[in-house]
Amino acid sequence: MITLASDFGTPYPAAMKGAILSRCDARLVDIGHEFSRQNVRAAAFWLSKVLPEFPPAVHLVVVDPGVGTDRAALVVRVGEHALVGPDNGVLLPPARALAEAEAGGATESNGHGAPALEAYELNAGEPRSSTFHGRDVFAPGAAAVHEIGVERLGGLDELAPADGVVDLEFPDPERIEDGVLGEVLVVDGFGNVVTNVPGGVLGNRSVARIDGEPTQVVPSYAHAEAGEAVVTVGSHDNVELAVNRGRGDDRFGLETGDAVRIEFS
Amino acid sequence: MITLASDFGTPYPAAMKGAILSRCDARLVDIGHEFSRQNVRAAAFWLSKVLPEFPPAVHLVVVDPGVGTDRAALVVRVGEHALVGPDNGVLLPPARALAEAEAGGATESNGHGAPALEAYELNAGEPRSSTFHGRDVFAPGAAAVHEIGVERLGGLDELAPADGVVDLEFPDPERIEDGVLGEVLVVDGFGNVVTNVPGGVLGNRSVARIDGEPTQVVPSYAHAEAGEAVVTVGSHDNVELAVNRGRGDDRFGLETGDAVRIEFS
Amino acid sequence: MITLASDFGTPYPAAMKGAILSRCDARLVDIGHEFSRQNVRAAAFWLSKVLPEFPPAVHLVVVDPGVGTDRAALVVRVGEHALVGPDNGVLLPPARALAEAEAGGATESNGHGAPALEAYELNAGEPRSSTFHGRDVFAPGAAAVHEIGVERLGGLDELAPADGVVDLEFPDPERIEDGVLGEVLVVDGFGNVVTNVPGGVLGNRSVARIDGEPTQVVPSYAHAEAGEAVVTVGSHDNVELAVNRGRGDDRFGLETGDAVRIEFS
Repeated sequence: MITLASDFGTPYPAAMKGAILSRCDARLVDIGHEFSRQNVRAAAFWLSKVLPEFPPAVHLVVVDPGVGTDRAALVVRVGEHALVGPDNGVLLPPARALAEAEAGGATESNGHGAPALEAYELNAGEPRSSTFHGRDVFAPGAAAVHEIGVERLGGLDELAPADGVVDLEFPDPERIEDGVLGEVLVVDGFGNVVTNVPGGVLGNRSVARIDGEPTQVVPSYAHAEAGEAVVTVGSHDNVELAVNRGRGDDRFGLETGDAVRIEFS
Repeated sequence: MITLASDFGTPYPAAMKGAILSRCDARLVDIGHEFSRQNVRAAAFWLSKVLPEFPPAVHLVVVDPGVGTDRAALVVRVGEHALVGPDNGVLLPPARALAEAEAGGATESNGHGAPALEAYELNAGEPRSSTFHGRDVFAPGAAAVHEIGVERLGGLDELAPADGVVDLEFPDPERIEDGVLGEVLVVDGFGNVVTNVPGGVLGNRSVARIDGEPTQVVPSYAHAEAGEAVVTVGSHDNVELAVNRGRGDDRFGLETGDAVRIEFS
Repeated sequence: MITLASDFGTPYPAAMKGAILSRCDARLVDIGHEFSRQNVRAAAFWLSKVLPEFPPAVHLVVVDPGVGTDRAALVVRVGEHALVGPDNGVLLPPARALAEAEAGGATESNGHGAPALEAYELNAGEPRSSTFHGRDVFAPGAAAVHEIGVERLGGLDELAPADGVVDLEFPDPERIEDGVLGEVLVVDGFGNVVTNVPGGVLGNRSVARIDGEPTQVVPSYAHAEAGEAVVTVGSHDNVELAVNRGRGDDRFGLETGDAVRIEFS
């Protein structure tokens, strides 16, 4: 199985599918191609939540604003999974999440028993273009990994162990008096504002102040009336700011990267 | 085969795919994930037109504004098909359409020989989240139905027959002097305005008045000049208001839920 | 394998998938359904770039502003590939590109050894609707071609050789003093402006004037600073006008069909 994720919209993902299918007969599963354009952090966040749902697979990930520069092309092995994509940080958060999931861990931190991450540089020779390595480097690379088998990557001469791989981390929220100072990681298509604040901080509270505004804490959006603002714990276990049947980003005036104060008094 | 339909955009549908594929090896077919957000009626309408094209399958349908409340999770069996989704009305119109199609019926009303609808409650235990039952309840449910086989659903202890399932009906148009008073059911991506008025009312007429405005009746959009407004019979057999190479919703000033007068004198 | 391309958005492509899968068990691969609505030229351009990446397949292509008129339904065979869609020009540029690719040719012109194009008229009888031949004519046609096998198309009585098929050509750029006068063929989702000018005209130059404005020539977007305008050679080997991490169409004030002067002095 090869999954495909990119910020390409239409029709570039199809060229990647063709490039794969002309090389192997893998099952293809679209993760999505409408990731926020050239937003490496947002893609890394979402993929760290989505890829661990999958059975062992090769995950092709192409959000690649540095295409055609000397950034490396990587294969990152995590147990029975492999990720293939640019060396710009987009692969490592989902790789760590896959390691956690394989270890059966429920926390974000690296638990005992999680498989190690092994990074290899993909030598693509002279690519056909300087502007579309999704088609010319990463899709052929994903097909090759699929054909070779993830478990045999370590023994290949073609894949050199990669040093100094670019990483990307999501900030921890900061404790402040009576609450936390967090950051908006992403806004989803419904306008739900996903923060970096673990859901656990809400405890049993029924109200939280968001940037000073008292807001009800609910188990899910529809526990409020339509149009009401809520604080809830999203499916990614982080605090989420939303409006039932409306858009939280508009109501709270928040977008990706913004700071947000969550207080309890 | 499991089909997937939702209002999730990117990337939540991928989490459902992962949840299914980590449980079974079903063929997955995307119906679409850009259904109008939280619009149960629009999804019910479109799915009642699209799902009957399919061979026997499990149809995962998640348009679920009430996620995390006590609305039930359902499996609705229709002959060799099953639908899995929330008990908010979104499943029943497509279920009836599937029954019609299995009976070989061409009409919307329940014909002789159509398979009965059997509704079961899906007991999901304690879901992982309160906000994403697509991943935590319905996708695993669809995988389970796929593995069990639709024809064996009735004998399962885990699935309790459901009573008082939420239904949803599309209004019939009202006869008025010289015509009908209809309703806009949905607007498609081209801006074509789909009404609840059966195409048959147009008869052989070449002109109809739409909210008072005389408009040509044509067999298809391109029988008018580019930019001209038309009345036609859509692929769903209902009266449709459109503009050749333009947007009917803008021209007629109509959107979902609006009343529309169609008169012939 | 059957690939699917259209300008349908959601949910019409799913009806085509159902129509195919109720007739055969082909592997389905989405090329994309967000092609610019009713823009036959743009779809023809993109498909001529994307389809040659694929192994032998039946390619269903439905961008069909003339649906329901007397335009013919076509099957075009190119070696081991077949294209199925309306006779409005959308099939021929990708068919020629497939012929080139099968011949191993790297140029756009028809090389030696390329398979001939064979066009057949698809007799659909009386379609179920006048407005959705994607579902009622072309999808069943693609399923039939898949089941018959592309190599046997020539021997079928049902498929009459088609004469006078509608063609569509992309203009050649015009030589002007110190440069070329080109045309914008399409703008991609990133805002990159794809012209009809072959990348080779840039030679080793480091600057080109675009409609009078001196602009740096780079191997790829990220060789410029974020926000800077660039001229580069796109993955389709044509000159492309772009902004690193921004939108070239906005910066250059260009859209599909516009003329653009590229000069070198």
